[in-house]
Amino acid sequence: MSEQVKRRIENGNKIPRRRVTSYDVAELAGVSQSAVSRVFQTGASASKDMRDRVFSAANKLGYRPNAIARGLITQRSNMVAVIISRQTNLYYPEVLVQITQRFSEHGIRVLLFALEHERDVNSTLDQVLQYRVDGVVTAVTLSHEQLKTLEHAEIPVIFYNRTHPEWLINSVRCDQEEGERWLVGQLVGAGHKRFAIISGPEDSQVSTDRTRGALQRLGELDIEDILIVTGDYSYASGRAAFAEIIHNMEPHPEAVIAANDMMAIGCIDEARETFQLRVPDEISVVGFDGVGPARFAAYDLSTVRQPVGRMSEAAVSMLIERIENPDLSPEKRVFSGERIRGGSARFTDSKI
Amino acid sequence: MSEQVKRRIENGNKIPRRRVTSYDVAELAGVSQSAVSRVFQTGASASKDMRDRVFSAANKLGYRPNAIARGLITQRSNMVAVIISRQTNLYYPEVLVQITQRFSEHGIRVLLFALEHERDVNSTLDQVLQYRVDGVVTAVTLSHEQLKTLEHAEIPVIFYNRTHPEWLINSVRCDQEEGERWLVGQLVGAGHKRFAIISGPEDSQVSTDRTRGALQRLGELDIEDILIVTGDYSYASGRAAFAEIIHNMEPHPEAVIAANDMMAIGCIDEARETFQLRVPDEISVVGFDGVGPARFAAYDLSTVRQPVGRMSEAAVSMLIERIENPDLSPEKRVFSGERIRGGSARFTDSKI
Repeated sequence: MSEQVKRRIENGNKIPRRRVTSYDVAELAGVSQSAVSRVFQTGASASKDMRDRVFSAANKLGYRPNAIARGLITQRSNMVAVIISRQTNLYYPEVLVQITQRFSEHGIRVLLFALEHERDVNSTLDQVLQYRVDGVVTAVTLSHEQLKTLEHAEIPVIFYNRTHPEWLINSVRCDQEEGERWLVGQLVGAGHKRFAIISGPEDSQVSTDRTRGALQRLGELDIEDILIVTGDYSYASGRAAFAEIIHNMEPHPEAVIAANDMMAIGCIDEARETFQLRVPDEISVVGFDGVGPARFAAYDLSTVRQPVGRMSEAAVSMLIERIENPDLSPEKRVFSGERIRGGSARFTDSKI
Repeated sequence: MSEQVKRRIENGNKIPRRRVTSYDVAELAGVSQSAVSRVFQTGASASKDMRDRVFSAANKLGYRPNAIARGLITQRSNMVAVIISRQTNLYYPEVLVQITQRFSEHGIRVLLFALEHERDVNSTLDQVLQYRVDGVVTAVTLSHEQLKTLEHAEIPVIFYNRTHPEWLINSVRCDQEEGERWLVGQLVGAGHKRFAIISGPEDSQVSTDRTRGALQRLGELDIEDILIVTGDYSYASGRAAFAEIIHNMEPHPEAVIAANDMMAIGCIDEARETFQLRVPDEISVVGFDGVGPARFAAYDLSTVRQPVGRMSEAAVSMLIERIENPDLSPEKRVFSGERIRGGSARFTDSKI
C-alpha cells in the first residue's frame, strides 16, 4: 500500500487535494485497475467477491468514478440537453420534471437550457454541441440548418410538441389541430356563431398549430364572424386580450377560443369582473393544455388536456433508442388530447 | 494541409466519423494548436488577426471546443447541479428557469436533478459527485454527512430556502417565519380567534418553518383554539384539508392559514363550493408564495410573495463567488417576503 493511500485512510479522508483514482482503489483492494473499472461499469461482469473487495476499498477511500472522464473514453457523456422556453411558463415545468426523472432512471442526466423566447435558440445550440451531449429534446423549434449541424455531430434530436411536414425528424406531440377542431365543433354545434380567438406569441409553433386548427374547422362550418387578437400565453395577456375583443367586436362574441388555459382563465376573469358577463351563460370560453389551475372550481375550464406523462415517456424512450442505435429511422408520435367538457362553455350533448 | 482536412472541406463536412480537433483547425489556419486553444478560451488574449484566422478555419471545419475535455484539464466542468423536489410543483419551476438563465449568462450550465420527494436525496448525491460539478444549489435539505461529502470533494453548496442554525453553510431564503408572523398579526388584529393551519408535507423544511412561525405568533397573542391538519402542497390536498377541518372543528374556524398558495386556493374553493361559506366575510384564508394563480381575480389571495428574482440572483452570484474563491467564508442571506394584503382575508388597517 502506498504511503499516500495509507495516509488518506489514517486521516479519515481529510486531505482532499488530490482526487482518489481507480488506481488507489485497485491497490487497496489488491486487484487490477481494469477490474475496478469493470465493477463500476454498469452491466459489466465481475464476481461477487471482486465486487465486495472493490466497493469496500472504494468506500474507505471515498472514491467515485468520474462520469465525465468515462464519457470521453466511451464517447457517451450520459447527458442529454433539454431546451425549453420561458414562454410556456406553467405547462413545461411539469414536463421538465417528468422528463428529468425518466432519464434519471436510465442513468442519464439532463443539461438544461432555458430560453427567454423561442427565437433565442441560436446562441444556445453552440453550447449544446460543446458539452458533447448524447441527444437533445427540444421544446423550441430548430431551423433546418441547426438540425443539419446536430445531424453532422451525430446527435439525435426529439422535437417536443412540434414537427415539420417535410423534414426527417423525430417528434412527440399532442394533436393540437384535432383538439381545436373538437372544441370548435362542440361550440358551433351548441349554436355559437360569433367567435374571437386569442392566439399565443407569434414565434410559438404550438400556438400557430392551435389557431390554424380552429380557423380551418370554423371555415368548414361556414363561420365568418371571427376576430383574432394576440396574447403572450400569460394570465394578464388573456385579460388584456378580452378587453381588446370587447372594444373591437360589437355585439360581443358568443365564444372565445384561447390558445392556452392561462389566457382562457384571464379572459374569464376579465369577462366577469370588468364586463359583468356570465360564463358560460352569456359567453363561452375554451382553453388548451389541461394545466392544474384549469381544474380550480372558479374556472372549471372546457379544454383539451395534453397527455404529458405519456408524451414525456415517449420522448425519453425515443431518444434513448436513437442514442443506442443511431441508424433507427425517424418516427413521429402524435397523441390525442383528453377532451375535458368542463363548465366554461356551452357544448353539445354529443360525446364524440 | 493533411489529406483528411482537405477531404473534409471538399465533402462539405459530410464525413462526421472522426471529430474535428483543435489540431485540424490549427493546421488549416496556419497557427499553433495552443493559439487555437487561446482563441477559444474566454478572456484569453489573442490578436484580432489571429482570432479571424482561427474562427474562419473553425467555421470551415465545423469545429467546436470540447467543453467536457476542457473541464478535465482546467478542473472546472462549468456545470452546476440544481436539486429540486417535485413537491414544490408550482413554485420552483419559475425559480429553476431564472437560475438556469442567470448561470447561463456566466457560461455555466445546469445539470438538473428532480426528486419525487425531498427524502429521496440520498441516491442523487452520488450522481452529483460523479459529474464533477463545480457547485450545487439545493432546494432539498441535505444531511450533515452529505454536506461533509461535498465539502470533502471541495464542491461549494448553496441551500435554497432552507438553512441550519448551527452548520457553516451558505443559504439564500425567504424569511418564512417573519412572513407568517405578519399574516397572524393581521388576522388576530382584525379579531380572528379560532384558527386552522394546513401544513405541508412532513419532510418539507419550508413547511416546517412556516408552521412554526405561525404557531409561535399565535401563542404570543394568546390564541389557543388551533387545529392543525396536513396537506401535500397540492390544490386537491387543500380542498381535502378544509373538509377535514370542518369535520373536526365546530363551530368552523374564523381563519385558515395554509402553508402555500395552492392549498389556500383549494381551501377557498372547498369552503365556497361544498360548504357555501363566503370568503373573507365568513372565513379568512391566507397562503404563502405569491404564485401566479394567487392573483387570479377569483381568489385574490392574501399572502406573502417570495422575491424569487432576487433570491435566484443571490444564489447564483454566491455560488459563482465560491467556485472562484473556495475559501470565502459562509454567508446566509435572508429576504423579507412581499406582503400582499389581497382580498381573501380580513386584515387590520395597519400597513406595517
